[in-house]
Amino acid sequence: MKRLLMLAAMVSLAAPLTAQSRLETVTIPSRLLGAEKTCMVYLPDGYDRDTVRHYPIVYLLHGASDTYKAWTERGNMRQITDEAIAAGLAVPMVIVMPDASGEGEHHTGEHMGYFDVEGWPYEQFFFEEFMPEIERRYRIVADKQHRAIAGLSMGGGGTAVYALRHPELFGSACSMSGLLDLFPGPRSYDNAFMRSVVENSPVALLRDMPDEKLEAVRTVRWWVDCGDDDILWLSNVTFYTTMRLRNVPLQYRMRDGVHSWRYWQTVLPDALSFFSIEFGK
Amino acid sequence: MKRLLMLAAMVSLAAPLTAQSRLETVTIPSRLLGAEKTCMVYLPDGYDRDTVRHYPIVYLLHGASDTYKAWTERGNMRQITDEAIAAGLAVPMVIVMPDASGEGEHHTGEHMGYFDVEGWPYEQFFFEEFMPEIERRYRIVADKQHRAIAGLSMGGGGTAVYALRHPELFGSACSMSGLLDLFPGPRSYDNAFMRSVVENSPVALLRDMPDEKLEAVRTVRWWVDCGDDDILWLSNVTFYTTMRLRNVPLQYRMRDGVHSWRYWQTVLPDALSFFSIEFGK
Amino acid sequence: MKRLLMLAAMVSLAAPLTAQSRLETVTIPSRLLGAEKTCMVYLPDGYDRDTVRHYPIVYLLHGASDTYKAWTERGNMRQITDEAIAAGLAVPMVIVMPDASGEGEHHTGEHMGYFDVEGWPYEQFFFEEFMPEIERRYRIVADKQHRAIAGLSMGGGGTAVYALRHPELFGSACSMSGLLDLFPGPRSYDNAFMRSVVENSPVALLRDMPDEKLEAVRTVRWWVDCGDDDILWLSNVTFYTTMRLRNVPLQYRMRDGVHSWRYWQTVLPDALSFFSIEFGK
Amino acid sequence: MKRLLMLAAMVSLAAPLTAQSRLETVTIPSRLLGAEKTCMVYLPDGYDRDTVRHYPIVYLLHGASDTYKAWTERGNMRQITDEAIAAGLAVPMVIVMPDASGEGEHHTGEHMGYFDVEGWPYEQFFFEEFMPEIERRYRIVADKQHRAIAGLSMGGGGTAVYALRHPELFGSACSMSGLLDLFPGPRSYDNAFMRSVVENSPVALLRDMPDEKLEAVRTVRWWVDCGDDDILWLSNVTFYTTMRLRNVPLQYRMRDGVHSWRYWQTVLPDALSFFSIEFGK
Repeated sequence: MKRLLMLAAMVSLAAPLTAQSRLETVTIPSRLLGAEKTCMVYLPDGYDRDTVRHYPIVYLLHGASDTYKAWTERGNMRQITDEAIAAGLAVPMVIVMPDASGEGEHHTGEHMGYFDVEGWPYEQFFFEEFMPEIERRYRIVADKQHRAIAGLSMGGGGTAVYALRHPELFGSACSMSGLLDLFPGPRSYDNAFMRSVVENSPVALLRDMPDEKLEAVRTVRWWVDCGDDDILWLSNVTFYTTMRLRNVPLQYRMRDGVHSWRYWQTVLPDALSFFSIEFGK
Repeated sequence: MKRLLMLAAMVSLAAPLTAQSRLETVTIPSRLLGAEKTCMVYLPDGYDRDTVRHYPIVYLLHGASDTYKAWTERGNMRQITDEAIAAGLAVPMVIVMPDASGEGEHHTGEHMGYFDVEGWPYEQFFFEEFMPEIERRYRIVADKQHRAIAGLSMGGGGTAVYALRHPELFGSACSMSGLLDLFPGPRSYDNAFMRSVVENSPVALLRDMPDEKLEAVRTVRWWVDCGDDDILWLSNVTFYTTMRLRNVPLQYRMRDGVHSWRYWQTVLPDALSFFSIEFGK
Repeated sequence: MKRLLMLAAMVSLAAPLTAQSRLETVTIPSRLLGAEKTCMVYLPDGYDRDTVRHYPIVYLLHGASDTYKAWTERGNMRQITDEAIAAGLAVPMVIVMPDASGEGEHHTGEHMGYFDVEGWPYEQFFFEEFMPEIERRYRIVADKQHRAIAGLSMGGGGTAVYALRHPELFGSACSMSGLLDLFPGPRSYDNAFMRSVVENSPVALLRDMPDEKLEAVRTVRWWVDCGDDDILWLSNVTFYTTMRLRNVPLQYRMRDGVHSWRYWQTVLPDALSFFSIEFGK
Repeated sequence: MKRLLMLAAMVSLAAPLTAQSRLETVTIPSRLLGAEKTCMVYLPDGYDRDTVRHYPIVYLLHGASDTYKAWTERGNMRQITDEAIAAGLAVPMVIVMPDASGEGEHHTGEHMGYFDVEGWPYEQFFFEEFMPEIERRYRIVADKQHRAIAGLSMGGGGTAVYALRHPELFGSACSMSGLLDLFPGPRSYDNAFMRSVVENSPVALLRDMPDEKLEAVRTVRWWVDCGDDDILWLSNVTFYTTMRLRNVPLQYRMRDGVHSWRYWQTVLPDALSFFSIEFGK
């Protein structure tokens, strides 16, 4: 009995905020990929009670060697988002975490990544099948202003490329420690994934973009964030430099840190606030 | 010539952002006070170009022994706001800085303060004459969600009292190092201003408020911020405690700092972001 | 082969800093407790190479329903400390994480806590057996200036009480979301642990401390930090208030947050810097 | 009488911390320059009471078109330093603000800058006359570990060059929005000052430095900080990149901001803490 009382005292200390947010996994069949892809969806407190209200949407991308579960299992995204909304530092939003993992124990198999590779047109799938299906299923304000994209590392690269190619779709974009150009150091680029990195370098895309296309890119609100000790520091300062030289306004931050979940958990709340200010404008 | 070139190089380093925000002083006659009161108005970049758009409004209050010029002359509010809007960390808004100064060299004369004193019904003036006139003159979205109030020290007290008494008018409120209860230490309360401090203590107002009125107070988004070395620390932790005990959600921050413009310049950007998230929801 | 190359590319992204810090578990027999207690010890990069150098020491206490493994397994203390030292934001130091867990699945059994209870004189053990043994085993600068104590929740309470009772031992103290007075809400205090909470309330200790003892308490550098939505908010603002009223200087912070590891991982780097400035003075 | 009481109430709110720090201006004759140069010296609380204690020293450099009074008159350095020391976030230190102003209304005359130009060997003066004289006059721990240098804009360039050329003198260096390479945009470099910028580019110095000299540069603790909207962003990311490529560890930060005193007032407290951790190691 005493034990129970004591336990009750303890447990209540750790009691979570009472936000009734909800995670659900959704599996979407793809004709283009000839496979099913699963994603994680965060639905904010209130989503189930008010069955009329439509919400802004954020696509939140994981990194290499990871899956659609990364942000919830290691990135603490639910607690972070619940707290930000409860504190009035973010508006209620739907957050979709797609899957770009490859096969194998480390999820690094040949289908890894956010871009089209031979026999696996992932980017095409994302825009033609995945996004439309997600936005049919959920009560979304399906316009540019209320749609944002964010991602870390390989997912930061995906974020940048998707927003550079589809500025008409995303009002805001946030790359965290993004793979925004080639990998650092000498690497072999002779497999499908590595070639896709070369072919989809955000730095190269931006540098080579015709002036008339840049105007649209400037309508995206950009937040690029990378630790000063991150292994991808060079591609990040290069991306920042290229954006400045091409006159694309952006927010750029370098804080103290390495390529780690601790860093990304620090960036996420800022990204949610940055997105929220646009969502409500 | 060389000198000129050199100067040109230097000057450009200090060149301000090109935001075309604008400050104007407005003088409003008051029948209630039998006097005119002047205020400062910040109009964001774009206000003059788009003559149809309506903006959220923030009332930004100065402290004791100061005037409507304090926030622009010593608080750096224009640069802070210009930068926050340019960075996408705040939405464009109109910011009105009223005057609650008293007479004399130190502006501490008998008409100082945001409350009604004998022969000087300032609070009545504020709500019946000042606010209506301001909101007639400017293109304002004149509803609770798009109206916020903020202030420092004596103006933090004004902010809290105005939002406690008129929760139907303000969507958000931010008190910075607010005078939220009596002055610290032994004081004489035998003059009009000091009596008005006693009669308008936010802590007392909140503590004595009937339950049925609290529900409305909970619809205001509160941000209360005070340095851990501020001379007003006690009234701030007491206000926080009273808010928590009466179940009014609030954001509360204590950072390192004293009662100083340096502190308030740190709080202002956070307040603008906090307001902006509501303005756009 | 391709797979291997790809994996190599991925793995290197997550490569940790190369700091050769080291964790070891140490078991210390206690005559007073009639039991052995195990602790975790963090030894900074360089500790093993330079066999003459002596280091400052920090005692880092876990919370209720947890063990000596909490800070390394859930608090990320090794990565945080490695990064802080590598960045020059903390000096190399030895960090000892003692164990104050109770029995049972939730470690909440009758021996939980940092204080003496009937048949389990933990506090006596800490100062008479544990600390001396630890400081014999490691190369420590064993003086007040180079010794600090920190802890979260129940360990924040332990931190405050130990530093209040032994200001001659600790140069700095940091309580994170500390249980600094009674538990919030109605509770039964009829078991040994709960009685020990009552008997060892830092707020009560401080309030009742004779003036002549306070002078020593003022020689400790205090950092008290608690989230504004923490369940222990009240005991924290009460402790802050009591410290101020008794003229004990302290750093006090309230950031946005709840009672969570995310919060404590934010406080820890600040605490390490705060300690380091004293260690080197 | 009432007025007096009221005023007393007000004034006490603004009462400064009671730190008895002191500023003094010192004029030092220079044989090399054939002129006198005046500087500002900050002496921390306690300097006059304890007449034996020796202190760490920081050289704090102003920017172009400014003088030795800039940091105290516009940079708020005294309040910032007093508060940092009082809070235990910096150790007591002597801070010397030299003068590198030129002539004329805007101080941009031909003698502006921290480098040697024809007929005005300022750098030589700094190391051969100024520093020795200052360190004779004040109670300084005159070694590398207890000596730091910091500066903004043109003074950030001076900081970087001085620490690159004299790593044996400075334990730490902090450049804020530094002019670390050429001016942005097309400029005429045909006067003495502008030529000195070209001849003393930190980026070029570092890029061309022989390997054997770099080892000494790595013994300096570097902090480089620049706003993401600063007009000097490019020379800052280039300096960061060059430091990384040449394997010189550094702290690098980009926060939100432009080339402004508001930004530098945010960097200064971090720099003082960063220096203090080294001073006491």
